[in-house]
Amino acid sequence: AKHIDWSPVQAERGGYKHFMRKEIHEQPEVVEATLRGRIDLAEGDVYAAEMGVPPEVAKQIRRVYFVACGTSHHAAIAGRYWMEQLAKVPSVVELASEVRYREPLFYPDDLVIAVSQSGETADTLAAVKAAKAGGARVLAVANVLDSAIPRVADGALYTHAGPEIGVASTKCFTTQLAALLLLAVYMGRRRGTLPQERAQKVLQALWEIPSHQREILGDADYVHAIAKKLVHAKDVLFLGRGLGFPIALEGALKLKEISYAHAEGYAAGEMKHGPIALIDEQLPVVAVCPRDAQYEKMLSNLQEVCAREGQVIAIATKGDEPMLELAQHIVWIPKAPDEVLPLLTVLPLQLIAYFVANLKGNDVDQPRNLAKTVTVE
Amino acid sequence: AKHIDWSPVQAERGGYKHFMRKEIHEQPEVVEATLRGRIDLAEGDVYAAEMGVPPEVAKQIRRVYFVACGTSHHAAIAGRYWMEQLAKVPSVVELASEVRYREPLFYPDDLVIAVSQSGETADTLAAVKAAKAGGARVLAVANVLDSAIPRVADGALYTHAGPEIGVASTKCFTTQLAALLLLAVYMGRRRGTLPQERAQKVLQALWEIPSHQREILGDADYVHAIAKKLVHAKDVLFLGRGLGFPIALEGALKLKEISYAHAEGYAAGEMKHGPIALIDEQLPVVAVCPRDAQYEKMLSNLQEVCAREGQVIAIATKGDEPMLELAQHIVWIPKAPDEVLPLLTVLPLQLIAYFVANLKGNDVDQPRNLAKTVTVE
Repeated sequence: AKHIDWSPVQAERGGYKHFMRKEIHEQPEVVEATLRGRIDLAEGDVYAAEMGVPPEVAKQIRRVYFVACGTSHHAAIAGRYWMEQLAKVPSVVELASEVRYREPLFYPDDLVIAVSQSGETADTLAAVKAAKAGGARVLAVANVLDSAIPRVADGALYTHAGPEIGVASTKCFTTQLAALLLLAVYMGRRRGTLPQERAQKVLQALWEIPSHQREILGDADYVHAIAKKLVHAKDVLFLGRGLGFPIALEGALKLKEISYAHAEGYAAGEMKHGPIALIDEQLPVVAVCPRDAQYEKMLSNLQEVCAREGQVIAIATKGDEPMLELAQHIVWIPKAPDEVLPLLTVLPLQLIAYFVANLKGNDVDQPRNLAKTVTVE
Repeated sequence: AKHIDWSPVQAERGGYKHFMRKEIHEQPEVVEATLRGRIDLAEGDVYAAEMGVPPEVAKQIRRVYFVACGTSHHAAIAGRYWMEQLAKVPSVVELASEVRYREPLFYPDDLVIAVSQSGETADTLAAVKAAKAGGARVLAVANVLDSAIPRVADGALYTHAGPEIGVASTKCFTTQLAALLLLAVYMGRRRGTLPQERAQKVLQALWEIPSHQREILGDADYVHAIAKKLVHAKDVLFLGRGLGFPIALEGALKLKEISYAHAEGYAAGEMKHGPIALIDEQLPVVAVCPRDAQYEKMLSNLQEVCAREGQVIAIATKGDEPMLELAQHIVWIPKAPDEVLPLLTVLPLQLIAYFVANLKGNDVDQPRNLAKTVTVE
């Protein structure tokens, strides 16, 4: 008889040791699924049918108010930047747990975007109810069909990430990013704030993301080597600017969740207002530093880190020579337009967190103290 | 001849070992100076003359947009909560370094509030210029008369903290809080959103703050004893909700700046989305947990910390019996209305940071790598 050395559960993991690793590698496929059938490249537009916001609402709303928790909150920060930049709608983003316990202001001409993988997050659901009570229109960005938040909302924009088992969200995060960028393009086109040509450029770049992601995931072994240097780090600082800021927050959260290292994400511009005091040769700094509009400013922040003997691990764009002088380790990402970079820069950070936790022998898919869906307050 | 054992510099420190300690103890006096001549208790109102915002502007603006860095950013978060709660003006708060390098949206009916102790912070000044370019009205909340930001702004609301020498801001922070709360009351009264009676209650409570602060500072020796337990902590988590959230951020920043411990501030509602994975007997948790509207929710967060063997240091309201069961150490603050609590809860956190840094033998007034006024980007 043939020896079977896979348990049924392992089989579900598709040959990977952990669901999280499998889910990281599924990202090209699920981002593609989230984009598929939604993009009209020729017109530089996004089809209204699945956006959850009717065109007349897209035109009329006066403010976008993102509410979310945890990883979804980081996607929402990027969502806010895109909404302001591409659709020119003044936007605000707030932690759902903060919204619900104060006296938040919501108006009938608000579009409240509630981002939640499970669609069941208790704090986000409560914030949505407060928004509805204020007369606001609510859009759910969720991964689980017909879950609580989409049911209460006026519309839903679904991510097509499939079931996510690992407690630390990975593929849901990148599909949330893809969905929110689609939505910003859709809103910008409806409101006449986004020229067709720029929309085409963003959508084309988004369409190429899965292949770029495959390229990054193909270098996972090199990331594994970097992770070995971080296994004994008790503290790690993650820095980014602009769209790199929520990615720095997300990279830190991943490491915190599964490796139990005290990782903290920071807007790089804030470094000189405090965290720079921490920097010495004991504190590795992970920098989200692709060649984008913030690149020069990030570079000068990294020079300050180096001047204080800090160790830099950089996520940088292929061909970036100056980075070779500044960083001890570099994970290269392919060149791409600024708007889509978060869908690339986060992948090495997910891999770093995964490898560090695995090297430590932690229970990657079920980290201590954490639950997948937070239905308690 | 009489022996003189004070150097002239020590004399300026008023007998204290460090400027920071002296400045912590000056808070009752400088908060009083910031309030003096500005409050009409009988009318439950704030005099327009020194608010920097003419009454017709206060009525007409449609949004408040706070921009700031570091400690001033924490004051601005509280400022936003007050502005929404008391004046019902939809508000947003953003790090100045993030505002300036993206394409931010500003409108002529915005009131942009730039908070900066020195009035010279480079990122905040650049954000103000972007706001002006967008046609927005700008109010500077600054401590240094006629500095760069007030000069560019349409109006100025000055804190009367006097010169602050310690790099870690203390007395400027509490005067910023006092000024921003006055402003929210002023706006609320002009817009008819704040009933006279509630305004009177808030202003009366604000007026009593200096005496409550003196009471807290009188217990500094007990805080010193707590600080001894924290000297060897490499990592510390600060938690708060609502108005306690910016105070948790500020408490963490103080400790980071001068004691070089990796302290991180977190909205307590987010704990279950990540940081709870870090909690064990090695990680002290400092909880901003006065008897306010968020008290019950904070209590349940602290129960989770205790269930994981975490050590809790609580800032709590006198007479709070349940806290005795949960916290290893408690710094008591006097009972006061919710709105003014940040002006009290932050004092023990400043003292903790100061004592820990001093016990470590750090250069408290000149922490490594940090400058008082950040005029670089």
